[in-house]
Amino acid sequence: MKLVVLGAAGRMGRTLVKVISETEGASLHAALERDGSPALGSDAGLLAGIGEIGVTVTGDIDTALEGAAGIVDFTAPAVSVHIAKRAAERRLVHVIGTTGFEAEADAEIAAAAENGATIVKSGNMSLGVNLLAVLVEQAARALGPDAFDIEVLEMHHRHKVDAPSGTAFLLGEAAAKGRGIALADHSVRVRDGITGAREAGTIGFATLRGGSVVGEHSVILAGEGERIELSHAAGDRTIFARGAIKAALWAWEKPAGLYSMRDVLGLSG
Amino acid sequence: MKLVVLGAAGRMGRTLVKVISETEGASLHAALERDGSPALGSDAGLLAGIGEIGVTVTGDIDTALEGAAGIVDFTAPAVSVHIAKRAAERRLVHVIGTTGFEAEADAEIAAAAENGATIVKSGNMSLGVNLLAVLVEQAARALGPDAFDIEVLEMHHRHKVDAPSGTAFLLGEAAAKGRGIALADHSVRVRDGITGAREAGTIGFATLRGGSVVGEHSVILAGEGERIELSHAAGDRTIFARGAIKAALWAWEKPAGLYSMRDVLGLSG
Amino acid sequence: MKLVVLGAAGRMGRTLVKVISETEGASLHAALERDGSPALGSDAGLLAGIGEIGVTVTGDIDTALEGAAGIVDFTAPAVSVHIAKRAAERRLVHVIGTTGFEAEADAEIAAAAENGATIVKSGNMSLGVNLLAVLVEQAARALGPDAFDIEVLEMHHRHKVDAPSGTAFLLGEAAAKGRGIALADHSVRVRDGITGAREAGTIGFATLRGGSVVGEHSVILAGEGERIELSHAAGDRTIFARGAIKAALWAWEKPAGLYSMRDVLGLSG
Amino acid sequence: MKLVVLGAAGRMGRTLVKVISETEGASLHAALERDGSPALGSDAGLLAGIGEIGVTVTGDIDTALEGAAGIVDFTAPAVSVHIAKRAAERRLVHVIGTTGFEAEADAEIAAAAENGATIVKSGNMSLGVNLLAVLVEQAARALGPDAFDIEVLEMHHRHKVDAPSGTAFLLGEAAAKGRGIALADHSVRVRDGITGAREAGTIGFATLRGGSVVGEHSVILAGEGERIELSHAAGDRTIFARGAIKAALWAWEKPAGLYSMRDVLGLSG
Repeated sequence: MKLVVLGAAGRMGRTLVKVISETEGASLHAALERDGSPALGSDAGLLAGIGEIGVTVTGDIDTALEGAAGIVDFTAPAVSVHIAKRAAERRLVHVIGTTGFEAEADAEIAAAAENGATIVKSGNMSLGVNLLAVLVEQAARALGPDAFDIEVLEMHHRHKVDAPSGTAFLLGEAAAKGRGIALADHSVRVRDGITGAREAGTIGFATLRGGSVVGEHSVILAGEGERIELSHAAGDRTIFARGAIKAALWAWEKPAGLYSMRDVLGLSG
Repeated sequence: MKLVVLGAAGRMGRTLVKVISETEGASLHAALERDGSPALGSDAGLLAGIGEIGVTVTGDIDTALEGAAGIVDFTAPAVSVHIAKRAAERRLVHVIGTTGFEAEADAEIAAAAENGATIVKSGNMSLGVNLLAVLVEQAARALGPDAFDIEVLEMHHRHKVDAPSGTAFLLGEAAAKGRGIALADHSVRVRDGITGAREAGTIGFATLRGGSVVGEHSVILAGEGERIELSHAAGDRTIFARGAIKAALWAWEKPAGLYSMRDVLGLSG
Repeated sequence: MKLVVLGAAGRMGRTLVKVISETEGASLHAALERDGSPALGSDAGLLAGIGEIGVTVTGDIDTALEGAAGIVDFTAPAVSVHIAKRAAERRLVHVIGTTGFEAEADAEIAAAAENGATIVKSGNMSLGVNLLAVLVEQAARALGPDAFDIEVLEMHHRHKVDAPSGTAFLLGEAAAKGRGIALADHSVRVRDGITGAREAGTIGFATLRGGSVVGEHSVILAGEGERIELSHAAGDRTIFARGAIKAALWAWEKPAGLYSMRDVLGLSG
Repeated sequence: MKLVVLGAAGRMGRTLVKVISETEGASLHAALERDGSPALGSDAGLLAGIGEIGVTVTGDIDTALEGAAGIVDFTAPAVSVHIAKRAAERRLVHVIGTTGFEAEADAEIAAAAENGATIVKSGNMSLGVNLLAVLVEQAARALGPDAFDIEVLEMHHRHKVDAPSGTAFLLGEAAAKGRGIALADHSVRVRDGITGAREAGTIGFATLRGGSVVGEHSVILAGEGERIELSHAAGDRTIFARGAIKAALWAWEKPAGLYSMRDVLGLSG
């Protein structure tokens, strides 16, 4: 499967190039970077530390997509929306690991999926996190809001610029689904000063930042005299790249539409 | 429902007496202690710190069971086996929170359940732990032995005399079930000195003891670059007593047989 | 040592009454409650679950302080400031476990200590937390701000009305002291939305609320490729009461002044 | 400072080669491997993924040490003892990150340090772990054996062949020193079956193995109603290499003798 990597000179892009080179059935078709990137013209394999592979980093998206089967994209919401439209026109697979979408951008992604793109989009591409979300949904259903309070805690490295993480929201959504409520109406994202007692049925978020932590998430269900904690720790960025390439290969055979990692992993329904 | 509490002067027995007094639909019928206990003749309510209730601690089991509907029992395997036979003769409910059974004792409990006793037996009576076991089974199924190693960690107070805890085994059994293996053939209970590399497919146990920790359990699924941890912490011994009384009330209507907390909680199958 | 307990019918007040009854060298002199409390006139021992002790809960502070050697106070800042002035007039020991003081109230407490009161004031009365603060200060000094980011995480029960906890600030202050900075100028108390990258040298706070958690605190020092975490978990409210009574006995012999739990425990300097 | 790396084709050896190339004041003088290693004759930089550096992996130790200032050694006890003697003859710096020494081997290392080698030896070369050991010693001293039980927990990847880890022992030794006892007489390394209640004053060890975990250690001090936990997590093997190179540079100026990482970090005494 011929894949195009976006942001190929960035940290995740280089990891994707490396993982593709190690994955049977996948090959790097093109490596894209934004106009003006100093990486334009360099060999994508050399940038990824795997030796020269003969694919030059380019800024020309149309040439890059020509002949490709899929796109792997951990960039920014505006870029991903733009690329999704291109994927729809060309009926390509588009794997989106980008986070931080607003509702409007989400709607544009969904429209692209209706118009011909085969999109796999997830706030987190790892196997473990997506399994965790399934478990969180069940736990939230079994342990009701009168008795158990739900909190989502995450920690990431010092360079992360947004909070809470996309994965924290993904887990919060899973908890909300288990409870049969809308997360937006029940989330508590800030606690500072005189907050009053915790309101039953809410889902709280807390954020830690520091060092080089790749990504850690915990969902806590705290009741009277007992507590359940369901956690995931990523030790290594390659788990996201491996999940994304696995998603691309899975989607290759699928009709256009909007899929999630749960679909890829057979954990949905 | 008229309940008999075994070991009524012990830590768990007193908690049971207290929880029964707070539970609608349950009443304390008799409070048993072993022969020679200094508590014989005392009021069970005074021992439990809830004021006099008019039930005197006795060593005479036959009188105690006369007219009772159920027995709640957190004692020792030999005692529980003996009581299960009495429960079968009298067709009573017998809730067994005792841990540390050998295979032979387990078989005698099962026989009593076939001969007329309605037995609910669990290595851990809390709602949270039994939910956790369900989640562990699923996670162990989804994350296979080639990629993910399973470890069970537990911590209890300094007075606990056996290791690993009954609940650690319960969680190990859940993991083994998810993997479709027999725990006994795959468990690693000691690591000391030159152990060699970890064998794929095994389930490891580790034990901590100290202070007044009521009971904490974690099941870790560790793979390449990521880790899932599913944990339960008991802050308070009353969760076990409440679960046991809930089990007794649930079993009151049920035919003779051997049940688990998953049955009580509607989490089985 | 004759002690007066404030808020004697509240959760902490009742624990104090119980701990005093178990502590050699201490006795309950009077039990105070606010005007209008339904507990006025009840026996303080009965409220505390230790049987009648002949001390009736009163709202009359002057009578209560007459003949007392010390006051133990886990109430509210305004009450503690008022009581500190009374303690100064009568040259009494005043142990203050109240939290949530503003700068102005802190100044009034300090003034009372200069005017005759022997005050022990701490954001947390437990031995463990005060030791932890000492360790945090050292770790923050040894692991400098260029390489290590400091975060303070706390979790408390659902009834707590303020965030972060007084103990979280106490630990943040210890970290700031180790770094030679003022906490107020470097603390990050909210992260939500687009925050930008973490600023070196700041001290972050995060808050979890749920269930019946008595109090858990972690200070994390996260660097490139490694992380240190220093934590305390309180399983039981009596640790604070025991620490407060220990502080009162320690202060009995001391000249007027403002002391901390580090002084009581011999961990200062 | 001209450094010789032992086991230069192994995982830690390659990391050392890489870190040396990034460290001002250090240079790779020679790269050693055992006889028969397939890496003999390869360029050490290519093996380390940093491009050709003109240092060929050799099996000839005498040539390798000629003209060197120091040796960095994460190998096996027998190798390290042998190399220490060579270091003594040539009055070289010898940094030993090897673990698993028996008492006899330790004595041979000490003898080499008396005979001319400047040895820095530590069960763990990271800054964080060595700081942790200092904090553990203090905590163990402040929280005495009557009230607080000490447990050491560690987790490592599935390939580790010994248990508990050298670092777990290092932390246990720190705790024992704080308590003024000998670890060997008070350690509990196995708990399985009927263990009886925990004996006051002992130091327990527990081991977890799984996945790709680089190394995590916790020292728990558990008392009645409260618990302190002091932890370190390594996310990345380079922290040990960086610590070892830092130790080599520090030792360059020092007289012959046996030093620890606490000396290097100025944390001793």
